[in-house]
Amino acid sequence: MTGLPVPTMPAPPVAVVGLGQLGGSLAAALAAAGREVSGWDVDPAARDAAAARGVRIGRELSGVVVLAVPLPVLGTALDGLDVAPDATVTDVGSVKAPVQEVLGGRFGGRYVGGHPMCGTERSGHAATDPALFRGARWALCLEPATELPRWLRVAEVALAAGAEVVPATVAEHDAAVAAVSHVPHLLAAALAAAAGAAGPLALALAAGSFRDGTRVIASDPAFVTAVLEGNAGPAEAALEQVRAQLARPWPELVAAGHAVRTADPGRRPVRVPLDRAALLALGRAGGAVTRRLAAFVEGWVPEGG
Amino acid sequence: MTGLPVPTMPAPPVAVVGLGQLGGSLAAALAAAGREVSGWDVDPAARDAAAARGVRIGRELSGVVVLAVPLPVLGTALDGLDVAPDATVTDVGSVKAPVQEVLGGRFGGRYVGGHPMCGTERSGHAATDPALFRGARWALCLEPATELPRWLRVAEVALAAGAEVVPATVAEHDAAVAAVSHVPHLLAAALAAAAGAAGPLALALAAGSFRDGTRVIASDPAFVTAVLEGNAGPAEAALEQVRAQLARPWPELVAAGHAVRTADPGRRPVRVPLDRAALLALGRAGGAVTRRLAAFVEGWVPEGG
Repeated sequence: MTGLPVPTMPAPPVAVVGLGQLGGSLAAALAAAGREVSGWDVDPAARDAAAARGVRIGRELSGVVVLAVPLPVLGTALDGLDVAPDATVTDVGSVKAPVQEVLGGRFGGRYVGGHPMCGTERSGHAATDPALFRGARWALCLEPATELPRWLRVAEVALAAGAEVVPATVAEHDAAVAAVSHVPHLLAAALAAAAGAAGPLALALAAGSFRDGTRVIASDPAFVTAVLEGNAGPAEAALEQVRAQLARPWPELVAAGHAVRTADPGRRPVRVPLDRAALLALGRAGGAVTRRLAAFVEGWVPEGG
Repeated sequence: MTGLPVPTMPAPPVAVVGLGQLGGSLAAALAAAGREVSGWDVDPAARDAAAARGVRIGRELSGVVVLAVPLPVLGTALDGLDVAPDATVTDVGSVKAPVQEVLGGRFGGRYVGGHPMCGTERSGHAATDPALFRGARWALCLEPATELPRWLRVAEVALAAGAEVVPATVAEHDAAVAAVSHVPHLLAAALAAAAGAAGPLALALAAGSFRDGTRVIASDPAFVTAVLEGNAGPAEAALEQVRAQLARPWPELVAAGHAVRTADPGRRPVRVPLDRAALLALGRAGGAVTRRLAAFVEGWVPEGG
């Protein structure tokens, strides 16, 4: 036996179930990056659109299987599809505890909960954009039961699509997105509803601050409600924190909010060993993984973090 | 005496005090529209920038005098300037009751409170844009003491800049902008401050809904605080309305907010006589004035309004 170089492990194929905005964009991004990608959608038009972007259409799912379907149908999205017994399964749902319960219960340590922090108020395969994930954060959950090599395999998929990977536990993820995504939807709804109740003159005088502050509630109400109900506990806790902030003296509140909104801490590059605790510490520090190497990952944390 | 046509009343000159974003843009828009415009600013650089756009620089103010200075200096902005005894005085401040007290006290029925609903988080003469008012609503206050011919003169200035004029009482204006402008600033501050308190992971996962929901609090905190303190009563009442909305069941709240945000009632053209009550009724119906004619104004109300 001569000293042949150790072969790099080949990137596993990726199979995307649900070829709407998120799934279609991911499949297209991976196909464009030269990865082997297959996909499935119950809608023939979505399948045709993905096929035109180089996605092989089929019901056999192996390698990294990405469920990119709305939360209410996550539990049945694999019905009639053939999942390889050693497949790694991930998803892109906005809330992780209920999905961890369903898919973690079914796939055990082979399930890795994921949540790319992107997407727009548009939806469906017509909103597909291979650049959607570029520079976006993609939360990937590391639970005690999660098999680390599978977590890394899913992380490589997110990195290949151009995202930065944020490690977090399911509970940490759900609390964080309650504060930065679910409560903003509640505040937008309350702001719009209160302005509507204030009457036509108020709506006639609505300008930039009202438009910005209510933009997210233009999204599909069924989707917003499903996400809120799937994360009711953390969302209620985060809303309570906002209520507490609103009770502060206004000059103090305005200064505090302005400081957070305009902070730019900068980034410090870091290397993190392939270790559960170290990866979770990176996420808790507000950092992200940008590259996988053989024995560690590269990434960054906020300056001073 | 032969039957000469009745001469159209010549448009009065306009004098703008404060040539920052709002004042500089207004003076530039009027100069571009062929109106006679003069202006003054304590900052020589702002005076030079306005002069380069066709604004005559001087301390003598006559015709329609527009005070376009920050709220805290409104009371002293005319110090050292020479205001003609029959001048009509208006302003562009974000809250009207305290300004009505100061300028209404000084100029009586010659003062007409105004508030163009535009401007960006930028400020100063470098942010001047003659198109800033195009299509924007411009609230103009009609109090019992306001002289209607002067109100119409100020309305013509706003229309000449490309805005649509919304008649309202001072109290109506302040309640309306509390709901659609001042409370959005409080919510944005509370959202940002609560996310900051939630920690670095939450900020790392912040995406579109957080950015949109906190955008307005990137503005100068001193300006935001001054506006909030100038409208404390109505802002507290409007915030209470938002708190009440947040106590509703979430599916109901989301549906209500979505309905207001996505409503598009359309416009029905109307003619309104030059009458205080009729003009205020137009504003209360959510409508606006778009054109002044000899015996009436033209405008629109929301369809069904």
